[in-house]
Amino acid sequence: MSQAPKRRRSGGRAGNTRRSSPEVINQMPWRLPQNIDAPVEPLGPEGVEAIHDGAMRILEEIGIEFLNEEALDLFRAAGCTVNGTNVRMGRDWVMEMLATAPSDFYITPRNPDKKIQIGGKTILFGNVSSPPNYWDLTTGKTPGSRAQCADLLKLTQYFNCIHFAGGYPVEPVDVHPSVRHLDVVFDKMVLTDKVAHAYSLGRERVEDVMEMVKIAGGLSEEEFQASPHMYTNINSTSPLKHDVPMIDGCLRCVRRGQAVMVTPFTLAGAMAPVTMAGAVCQSIAEALSAIALFQYVNPGCPCVIGTFTSNVDMKTGAPAFGTPEYMRATQMTGQMARFYGLPLRASGSCAANVPDGQAMWETSNALWSAVQSGTNVVYHAAGWLEGGLIASPEKFIMDCEVLQMIQRYLEPVTFATGPDDIAFDAIKEVGPEGHFFGIQHTQDRYEEAFYQPMVSDWSNFEAWDLKGGIWTAERAHLLFKEIIASFEAPPMDIAVRDELADFVARRKAEGGAPTDF
Amino acid sequence: MSQAPKRRRSGGRAGNTRRSSPEVINQMPWRLPQNIDAPVEPLGPEGVEAIHDGAMRILEEIGIEFLNEEALDLFRAAGCTVNGTNVRMGRDWVMEMLATAPSDFYITPRNPDKKIQIGGKTILFGNVSSPPNYWDLTTGKTPGSRAQCADLLKLTQYFNCIHFAGGYPVEPVDVHPSVRHLDVVFDKMVLTDKVAHAYSLGRERVEDVMEMVKIAGGLSEEEFQASPHMYTNINSTSPLKHDVPMIDGCLRCVRRGQAVMVTPFTLAGAMAPVTMAGAVCQSIAEALSAIALFQYVNPGCPCVIGTFTSNVDMKTGAPAFGTPEYMRATQMTGQMARFYGLPLRASGSCAANVPDGQAMWETSNALWSAVQSGTNVVYHAAGWLEGGLIASPEKFIMDCEVLQMIQRYLEPVTFATGPDDIAFDAIKEVGPEGHFFGIQHTQDRYEEAFYQPMVSDWSNFEAWDLKGGIWTAERAHLLFKEIIASFEAPPMDIAVRDELADFVARRKAEGGAPTDF
Repeated sequence: MSQAPKRRRSGGRAGNTRRSSPEVINQMPWRLPQNIDAPVEPLGPEGVEAIHDGAMRILEEIGIEFLNEEALDLFRAAGCTVNGTNVRMGRDWVMEMLATAPSDFYITPRNPDKKIQIGGKTILFGNVSSPPNYWDLTTGKTPGSRAQCADLLKLTQYFNCIHFAGGYPVEPVDVHPSVRHLDVVFDKMVLTDKVAHAYSLGRERVEDVMEMVKIAGGLSEEEFQASPHMYTNINSTSPLKHDVPMIDGCLRCVRRGQAVMVTPFTLAGAMAPVTMAGAVCQSIAEALSAIALFQYVNPGCPCVIGTFTSNVDMKTGAPAFGTPEYMRATQMTGQMARFYGLPLRASGSCAANVPDGQAMWETSNALWSAVQSGTNVVYHAAGWLEGGLIASPEKFIMDCEVLQMIQRYLEPVTFATGPDDIAFDAIKEVGPEGHFFGIQHTQDRYEEAFYQPMVSDWSNFEAWDLKGGIWTAERAHLLFKEIIASFEAPPMDIAVRDELADFVARRKAEGGAPTDF
Repeated sequence: MSQAPKRRRSGGRAGNTRRSSPEVINQMPWRLPQNIDAPVEPLGPEGVEAIHDGAMRILEEIGIEFLNEEALDLFRAAGCTVNGTNVRMGRDWVMEMLATAPSDFYITPRNPDKKIQIGGKTILFGNVSSPPNYWDLTTGKTPGSRAQCADLLKLTQYFNCIHFAGGYPVEPVDVHPSVRHLDVVFDKMVLTDKVAHAYSLGRERVEDVMEMVKIAGGLSEEEFQASPHMYTNINSTSPLKHDVPMIDGCLRCVRRGQAVMVTPFTLAGAMAPVTMAGAVCQSIAEALSAIALFQYVNPGCPCVIGTFTSNVDMKTGAPAFGTPEYMRATQMTGQMARFYGLPLRASGSCAANVPDGQAMWETSNALWSAVQSGTNVVYHAAGWLEGGLIASPEKFIMDCEVLQMIQRYLEPVTFATGPDDIAFDAIKEVGPEGHFFGIQHTQDRYEEAFYQPMVSDWSNFEAWDLKGGIWTAERAHLLFKEIIASFEAPPMDIAVRDELADFVARRKAEGGAPTDF
């Protein structure tokens, strides 16, 4: 962890810093998975050009609404055409702005060992963010609480395959909105040492998080601004609109060198065209309009283009996730992100209400499409149910099994073809009557040879039945209880913790953030 | 359906032929999905060469055991080196034999509308085959029966995304093994009109199926031999061995122009090397040794190379399926199948014991790796549990949802980029304040715009809860009961049915098949 000596204080709970994670599960170590597969590219060059041209025509001929006055002034200064809140921008200007955006960058949290690369071939996973409700096998569906939020933050910290913290893993509706961000970010800073997020929901919220990230990392303002230490993620108000606070929050971040992700939420057939290419075009136009602005304000600032293009059920209007159309939209957006030279964010997602078979095929579809599309940042990768309205710890753990399998899948050893991998001598040694279990070639490799599951049960039916015949969601529930019971927070100097607490107390005394926007 | 006039008989249940399928589910129509994605290719050219060289060295320097005397005679005649049961063959001879194998061919069942292409870009799905046990939510795990087998055959027929019938969808252990094939193939011929399979488990079994396929299709021997009308699938006895009846069955098929699939079952760490490339090498050597023989016997005969390379849990020896290693092995074998110009068979599979979350992420991994590898024939694509020891109707229906999503994913409309797909005018029409639901562009397309689920429930939590809060497996169970209750067999002329019944009765009177091999 990073801690400035000036903040060190004598006495107290220094023993905390020597704790190591308990081993409820034999999980894979922390790593930044490298996606070496060639991406699945449904579009030919003419398809890429058609989507690019469509997005550019939207920006040039229809324009995007920016409700934020500061943004409108900036667009005017940049020479764009501003009529009321409508902003039209030429493709040459947009492409000129995008040219300064980095194709990859790093974010360093309070524990520098948990630094992450955003972009390149790296694929990262974060926890589910922002569901208003919580569900587990004992509680059923309930509005989220701070305690449940903390439990999910503990899972975020516990699992090595979760590389960064997203927004609130569940909205703690038992904490007043004016101070909610202070309590949750305090919990997040204490319970995790991974890269953290700020909601762009008003000046105070985003500024407070930046201050708390500085405190937790022991950073001066100069050190903070020198490179990204946190990020925000915004959604446009589709179709074709960016609201006031989200653009405001991004501007505050990019001016201080912090990272922003711009993720339109374009459900085809509802707030976007019923055709997937049309929904992707609109999503890209919405995202690029904001990213171009941010590059204008701070050329070279770290920006990520996000995709959340899915479809509705046309019979009911219900949103659907992890569908074939969702997969293709993600792949197409991956091609466009590479065309624009931007890192890509996508999601794990499903429409299922409980962590059952449907939940896992929908989420598997979403997660594998993230791999196939060359996605760099997978939001909501663990714990999402009911189209994002429920966070579930069982689903979190089940998703982590899939994430670990993806990590293992991406390890080149799984398809290495050196002489020892081809194993001619081993095959000759065993011959037609033998078995490979006992030979040296196997003994030398068996511990690391294959993926080791966490919540999967590979026993046969009778052995599984003897253990109680427990289905996956219930096994995950039991693991959840064990992980929480034995959880130990990552080390944090007591002085840092106290300073964070002092900051929270002061800001609460000041009233926190206004809740009237 | 195909029925020769000479077999038509007056009177009786001709009304059968006018029945159409009842619509319990609004499923996708019958189609042969075309896999237009570029395959995922973990191996570079040097990796392909390393595996090829490894497989060839196995054939040249170690050899494969053939227990079948006829095969040994054929190999001797072909100039291979035969020592006892050990056969070594030079790579030049193997590659010369493979040169005559077709890269694609067709199989025509009794209903010519259900003709399937094996090879090319086509990907086909078949039912789970050969589990000794049955499981559903009401019965729990039981040994399979003829009635359960018939129910699963009805699902095989009912779902348009199931393109061919595999082996027994569950082993009917209440029917004596000597006549089991007669009863089940009778059921299969009557309850389905899709391409059927014969077990290569002794002369009588495979010859009887060929006779019954001829009767069901109204085919003379000449018509039967003119093109494939059925197939067999064999496994080698890994490591490095082919047994007597499997080779015998294949020889009988290829001599009469029928299709064969050769699928080694190579579990890395058990009957194959612990390294995935080594397990793939061995699998390919085992498969090619048989396919080369079949090409020698009947140049140009339709052969498929199969892969069933997975890994064991090194702690327990339990087989694992749908693992990251399994996915990479399937992709590597896909590259090798293209290298040899052979159609590829893979599988849907899982280790899970019940149709829960684990079952679906493992099966999703397996099925998507089939797509990624360019697999042409996906065996066990619906209904498999417990590493193939259980067939489950709930799992069958849940898998069919995934299969339909794969079919939809492969439709080019999901990523089309024509002007109407880009939808610039629709985006302009709706503008920043509107909604796409009501516009003409949406109205013209909404019925076919998106995948429509069968067993997935996309309602929100409260609506789902009001309907009983039913998890996926239970929803699938209810659908299973509805489908079976309303099932109507595909049309079959009564004369054909009677002839099939007469054949079965005669063969039973003769004693069926010996059961002592």
